[in-house]
Amino acid sequence: MTLSFEILEKDIAGRIGKLSGQGKTVKTPTLLPVINPHLNLITPKEMQEMGVEAVITNAYIFSRSEEYRERALSDGLAKTLDFDGVIMTDSGSFQLSVYGEVEITNAQTIAFQQAIKSDIIVPLDIPTHPDSPREQVEQELSVTVDRIMEAKDIADHEHHTLAGPVQGGLFPDLREETGRKLSEAGFRFCPIGAVVPLMEAYRYAELVKVVMAAKRGLSPAVCVHLFGAGHPSMFALAVAMGCDLFDSAAYALYAKDGRYMTTHGSYHLNELSYLPCPCPVCVGHTAKELNESPDRERLLAMHNLRVSLAEINRVRQAIRDGVLWELVDERCRSHPALLRGYRALLGYNEELTALDRETKRRFFYRGDESCKRTEVLRYHQMVGRLTAGERTLISFSRHIKKKQTEGFDSVFYFKPPFGPFPAELTETFPIGQSEIPDFDEEMIRTGCIGIARLMETNPDSHFTIRCRPVWKELISQILPTVEVQDEGS
Amino acid sequence: MTLSFEILEKDIAGRIGKLSGQGKTVKTPTLLPVINPHLNLITPKEMQEMGVEAVITNAYIFSRSEEYRERALSDGLAKTLDFDGVIMTDSGSFQLSVYGEVEITNAQTIAFQQAIKSDIIVPLDIPTHPDSPREQVEQELSVTVDRIMEAKDIADHEHHTLAGPVQGGLFPDLREETGRKLSEAGFRFCPIGAVVPLMEAYRYAELVKVVMAAKRGLSPAVCVHLFGAGHPSMFALAVAMGCDLFDSAAYALYAKDGRYMTTHGSYHLNELSYLPCPCPVCVGHTAKELNESPDRERLLAMHNLRVSLAEINRVRQAIRDGVLWELVDERCRSHPALLRGYRALLGYNEELTALDRETKRRFFYRGDESCKRTEVLRYHQMVGRLTAGERTLISFSRHIKKKQTEGFDSVFYFKPPFGPFPAELTETFPIGQSEIPDFDEEMIRTGCIGIARLMETNPDSHFTIRCRPVWKELISQILPTVEVQDEGS
Repeated sequence: MTLSFEILEKDIAGRIGKLSGQGKTVKTPTLLPVINPHLNLITPKEMQEMGVEAVITNAYIFSRSEEYRERALSDGLAKTLDFDGVIMTDSGSFQLSVYGEVEITNAQTIAFQQAIKSDIIVPLDIPTHPDSPREQVEQELSVTVDRIMEAKDIADHEHHTLAGPVQGGLFPDLREETGRKLSEAGFRFCPIGAVVPLMEAYRYAELVKVVMAAKRGLSPAVCVHLFGAGHPSMFALAVAMGCDLFDSAAYALYAKDGRYMTTHGSYHLNELSYLPCPCPVCVGHTAKELNESPDRERLLAMHNLRVSLAEINRVRQAIRDGVLWELVDERCRSHPALLRGYRALLGYNEELTALDRETKRRFFYRGDESCKRTEVLRYHQMVGRLTAGERTLISFSRHIKKKQTEGFDSVFYFKPPFGPFPAELTETFPIGQSEIPDFDEEMIRTGCIGIARLMETNPDSHFTIRCRPVWKELISQILPTVEVQDEGS
Repeated sequence: MTLSFEILEKDIAGRIGKLSGQGKTVKTPTLLPVINPHLNLITPKEMQEMGVEAVITNAYIFSRSEEYRERALSDGLAKTLDFDGVIMTDSGSFQLSVYGEVEITNAQTIAFQQAIKSDIIVPLDIPTHPDSPREQVEQELSVTVDRIMEAKDIADHEHHTLAGPVQGGLFPDLREETGRKLSEAGFRFCPIGAVVPLMEAYRYAELVKVVMAAKRGLSPAVCVHLFGAGHPSMFALAVAMGCDLFDSAAYALYAKDGRYMTTHGSYHLNELSYLPCPCPVCVGHTAKELNESPDRERLLAMHNLRVSLAEINRVRQAIRDGVLWELVDERCRSHPALLRGYRALLGYNEELTALDRETKRRFFYRGDESCKRTEVLRYHQMVGRLTAGERTLISFSRHIKKKQTEGFDSVFYFKPPFGPFPAELTETFPIGQSEIPDFDEEMIRTGCIGIARLMETNPDSHFTIRCRPVWKELISQILPTVEVQDEGS
């Protein structure tokens, strides 16, 4: 494969990476705007000036267009589109998903994509609708895998990167198996396909299931493209699962429809009295002016693309800072269906903890969901390696006098949702870098998991917890064998 | 008073309003950027082009400046600043809070502010530090109120609006009493003062206590200015409490310090590898370019002001749409101290419910905190007015067959966190316009408050709840007298 993928920084299962080759570089995560030569609201050159390093276009449209076919064949895509970044082409699979058939074969599309000098080429995989029955999914998946392998045999790997799309419908075992098969066959660029119907129907919990399964099968070294994901409200969620690339025509399709994208959802321009965005389009117009502008479609596409690219930057910065969970939490509460996806993702916290980095810049508690984060689970795992003395005090208050610790062999403090910590860990992550509001019930419950773990691995110790009276009953309920005292005593 | 204040739309205790008079109009909520004539990073004229309708400047600085004093006296502020929107002046109270004394009297500052033709003038109130003991607060408050009343007697009300600042430290009764006194004296423009130390120390729960107390005393017709509030992350919270105006030098002070504002907090430019914003400054520079620009301070001030103004628009749009709670939730989770403030605000939900509007565009569940929202409390109040038959079924599932309702006189469905609803309410707010993720425990607990209310006001009815087995135990625990059946039965 011509493009190599290097992972530079990580957070949860997300990463900042570099896709490079043939003098071109693409920082990831990134968004590949879809270029439709027939609907050129923003030119590829303008996109490049906006910081876009890669675009995707549809080889099938070029192959069927009298206007563009010959030009692309003679001049190549870079010159035809006037874009010198990375160009990816889709094979016609999208048309297959919409119309049910295409007039091109797998071998023909590979040859055509190569002939028009696409950097990343895609075989004619079958994007099986996620609600299809298992039998159909298996049968179409088998055809897809055959076509991918056929493409692998016939492709010119010196000049093009061949993508290996992961299909498998809603069946996690099929997605995982396909991911593994493609990784083993050497694919280093894998789109996850046929998820658009899930995103269109806000089925984010199922999207999480599908992507997590595919990722489990794929090698971590694979650059993962989430096909058709283009709304900025879900970039953080997808990146947290380990997706590196997005592509979408949404910025333009939404614009045609008068729809105004934001990171918290979309508005129809008719509904907006105020433009809640500082982009050049929004600071230059009132909502009314924008809605009535003869140039509305182009202006709106510009706004939509700008906010999408700004969100990509926000995601990258969050990975750098180790605060991607905070961003996922912020974005996913914007719609109950995204919240469902977020909660589903937190259900994978064991797998994610194994992938997540060890220390982060900070941990901000953002509500009950924060109790399920990887940093909390990792802390609970770590607590089991601490040694507690024969008589151990766990003090909820950090301000205790020497006299109050008399009679104890060891003293731990308590920071929920993590749990007990010895004074030596006061400055280390996450104890020293976490901020929490006042204790609440879910936080205490989760912190008690840490206490229980410490008790379990120190079976000979006698534990005393000192806390405010308000928490005594709850703690006795969760940890019935522990001695609970008033903080005043 | 010259300016009149008209309230156009409401959400929670927040409102969209219009402050107008002498041919000038200011839409609220809004931000008054602080103009320091000695530090003119962005000119008032440029601000006007950015959509700023009102600014605030410091009369005391003008009175002490050889350079500006005479010019302001001869030309007036509008010409001196080159700004033809509303101009408010502070009296020197800010300097009083910083230096402990000022060389101007109350009568002198009023006369000077009038002489330089300020639209909104402020007496020399004493901004008592919030941590001051009650005795000091009471004593200084008494001086403040005397000065306000003195100013009222001497001010030229035909040409200037006299602000009546609400002081009272951290004592809710003093804040409330002062608010009431000023409302009764006819003040229609009241800043809430001396809260900057609370905001600087992230003491948002106490800020909420202070503002809610002041608002309780103030007439709803009063235009409320939160003195010194300038970070966009807290505009939504403050507006939800009924604050209409903000002012701040933060956009410029942060810029001097290399600090980059966002709605989710601030970064130091040195920390930023990517600019997570689509404003004209950010799309024209990389993080490195911006940080190394000789024009950094001005560019950063531009960015800071742009994001602040965009957030004002977001807040206004949220009020229009009746989704201000959603925005408060989004912003306040960005920092645990803001979350503490948000939770404190939810503690006032009875007061807020009385002020909140009756129907909204939608209700999106965003986590446990949503259970405490005004719409939920109002629904629980309403449920008590519904009539239940002698034998009443509450079905958690909406898909029940006629046969399953045999033997019941009335059937209710269940939508947590609201509670039971009859079929007739399916399309009305909030039942029809609310979206929730899968049921969770807190949601069910809160929905059961609604059931308990229905049971309480229909003491002769026998209630049967049909739900999934997983919820049976919880419901029997909360509502021990109710009959709980499996959904399957």
